[in-house]
Amino acid sequence: MLSLDKVFNAQTVLKSIIRETKLVRAYGIAPHCELYLKPENLQITGSFKVRGSAYKIAMLSDEEKAKGVIACSAGNHAQGVALAATKNGIKSLICLPDSAPISKVEATKGFGADVCLVEGCYDDAYKKALELKDSCGYTFVHPFDDENVIAGQGTIALEVLNDLDNIDAIVVPVGGGGLISGIAYTVKQIRPSIKVYGVQMAGAPSMYNSVNAEEIRCLESVSTIADGIAVKQPGENTFRLVSEYVDGIALVSDDEVASAILGLMEKQKMIAEGAGAAAVAAVMFDKFDLKGKRVVSIVSGGNIDVTSLSRVIDRGLLNSGRSTSMLIELIDKPGQLKEISRIIADCGGNVTGVHYEKGNTESVNGCYLRIEMETRDFDHVNLITQTLKNEGFKLI
Amino acid sequence: MLSLDKVFNAQTVLKSIIRETKLVRAYGIAPHCELYLKPENLQITGSFKVRGSAYKIAMLSDEEKAKGVIACSAGNHAQGVALAATKNGIKSLICLPDSAPISKVEATKGFGADVCLVEGCYDDAYKKALELKDSCGYTFVHPFDDENVIAGQGTIALEVLNDLDNIDAIVVPVGGGGLISGIAYTVKQIRPSIKVYGVQMAGAPSMYNSVNAEEIRCLESVSTIADGIAVKQPGENTFRLVSEYVDGIALVSDDEVASAILGLMEKQKMIAEGAGAAAVAAVMFDKFDLKGKRVVSIVSGGNIDVTSLSRVIDRGLLNSGRSTSMLIELIDKPGQLKEISRIIADCGGNVTGVHYEKGNTESVNGCYLRIEMETRDFDHVNLITQTLKNEGFKLI
Repeated sequence: MLSLDKVFNAQTVLKSIIRETKLVRAYGIAPHCELYLKPENLQITGSFKVRGSAYKIAMLSDEEKAKGVIACSAGNHAQGVALAATKNGIKSLICLPDSAPISKVEATKGFGADVCLVEGCYDDAYKKALELKDSCGYTFVHPFDDENVIAGQGTIALEVLNDLDNIDAIVVPVGGGGLISGIAYTVKQIRPSIKVYGVQMAGAPSMYNSVNAEEIRCLESVSTIADGIAVKQPGENTFRLVSEYVDGIALVSDDEVASAILGLMEKQKMIAEGAGAAAVAAVMFDKFDLKGKRVVSIVSGGNIDVTSLSRVIDRGLLNSGRSTSMLIELIDKPGQLKEISRIIADCGGNVTGVHYEKGNTESVNGCYLRIEMETRDFDHVNLITQTLKNEGFKLI
Repeated sequence: MLSLDKVFNAQTVLKSIIRETKLVRAYGIAPHCELYLKPENLQITGSFKVRGSAYKIAMLSDEEKAKGVIACSAGNHAQGVALAATKNGIKSLICLPDSAPISKVEATKGFGADVCLVEGCYDDAYKKALELKDSCGYTFVHPFDDENVIAGQGTIALEVLNDLDNIDAIVVPVGGGGLISGIAYTVKQIRPSIKVYGVQMAGAPSMYNSVNAEEIRCLESVSTIADGIAVKQPGENTFRLVSEYVDGIALVSDDEVASAILGLMEKQKMIAEGAGAAAVAAVMFDKFDLKGKRVVSIVSGGNIDVTSLSRVIDRGLLNSGRSTSMLIELIDKPGQLKEISRIIADCGGNVTGVHYEKGNTESVNGCYLRIEMETRDFDHVNLITQTLKNEGFKLI
């Protein structure tokens, strides 16, 4: 059974393994409230996950430890289990689908785990892990639905409560529900007046649906940039704990999360992964009534590959009017590009791409020009658009 | 005169204004040494600069305070002075060239300064600031060549020495030299055995040249992605202090700094600007003899706009073999793209861009195909290149 004693015990056990991350006051991200971030992206392994798995592993019997642990994950859980096992001096085997990004495979090995690449998808790797668990006697470390794992995640709440007084609300990303179960349980035992809110992705609302239906619901598929919380079905323990202790769950969109990632980069100089930025997105986009409140958002992790990050930046720039792309239909005669370039330059736009295309234009001599440029904001985009139109160009 | 007393006094004065940034152990960035980061990118205003300007401003007489302060900067110094003045309850005027990015102008206003946009470049803004200083009686806050400013930056050394024992070396980015002067002076008074190294950009080596020439040298122009340390001429105080207390200065290239920015993002989940990553780049690329040593790199700031960051990421991916672009000459007949796509897919490359171009190929029916793709590393790039060649395609 989960108990506050276990959470306090976890805090003691974890002292030599994890970093205690200090709250950071975030200015400018959500001006309507007093926002603090719990930066678990700066945790060892780049995510909070190591807390739960390290406590789980530390609590194993000597016999279990001697046999080693096994887990299945292509992400933060893999690295958490790997490091936790290594720090406890026991061996770990992580099953990964062979489609897993090489960077994650290398990171997992780097923390001391053996890696078993399984042909197929996550479900195949999971099946393989269960087989190996049975045949070799490894202990399976579940990513969320385990009371020791949940107790480990609960240590975040102890740190938050120790770090800051008079908190009104804590906002937590929700995948399988291990993190929010640990936090909500702990907070409600110690400071029941603090609201605990969960955030899921609109493309993966498994806990949201389950809580609303008052029974566990399973999604057929999930689709979101926040792969860390793209979970099809909550756990039994976590569903029960969330139903009992959490004050509300909201959904955020991929675009909202992309804006939050960008905000964290620009204002806080921090990298968050999609899941890590979800709770910040919920505060930014006003999903709960937090006006004037003192709020802590859990930034659960920062393990996003730079290629994805680059795409998120591009999307975020487009969404905030700081870049734009225009398609202009023009008559195929000399001097058109020069004229358009002049107008954009005069308006202060910075051209970053030009593509000339023949196409099915009105006139047989027509063609399309796609121009990409850096802009200041939507007003600036409008200024350029309007000026081009005023000078007789036809924008599609 | 600079004195250790002043640095200690600055530490007391700054307590209520700045954040004490805690050293972070950086794994995986420079495996040949034990690297710690001093994350001044997480400082209020996103850079260390606020320390020096806040101490300078706090030490003004009541009469000087009543008149207010003026500074000229398009970057971190502007935000530092603005916040420092506001926290001291006095007014500040910052002269900026009208070409300054709107985000920096807004940030400076956001910290409470009045902004005077001056037509022209930095030098014009500087001239205007001096005019206004004389005509209105403002106190000019120099970005580096001022002993109180230097004493303020020296508080970083006090924090580092308090945070970690047995340091072998501290590596510091150098622009005008205020930061390294404060740190080197303080360290050499307290722990003279610790080496203090400076890092400049190959495209802006003003202090490097001056120290080598044993007299102040002025560059005609500077060109670097690290705009925060693109300074044409060291100060008189800083030149003297660096000559006396610094153990060596090395140069790094833009590409080395881009790799360091990428490393900090991936391994530390931190955003650094070019200047902020320069000292990390010097350690990564082995500019000093630090093998097996305990080293602190100062990450001086994180104020890089996301558009530049996006470019740095793209460059860093290319430089590390994680993306590539191939130009293939082919005969203009159907099925070529299909065949090339198949080969790349079979090799595990992920195509992100395709451009077909007519051109001056050998055959009159020939054309060029430019393919951009995500790859794992240089071995992977070579595998794809070799396979395409083996199948008869001509790579340019």
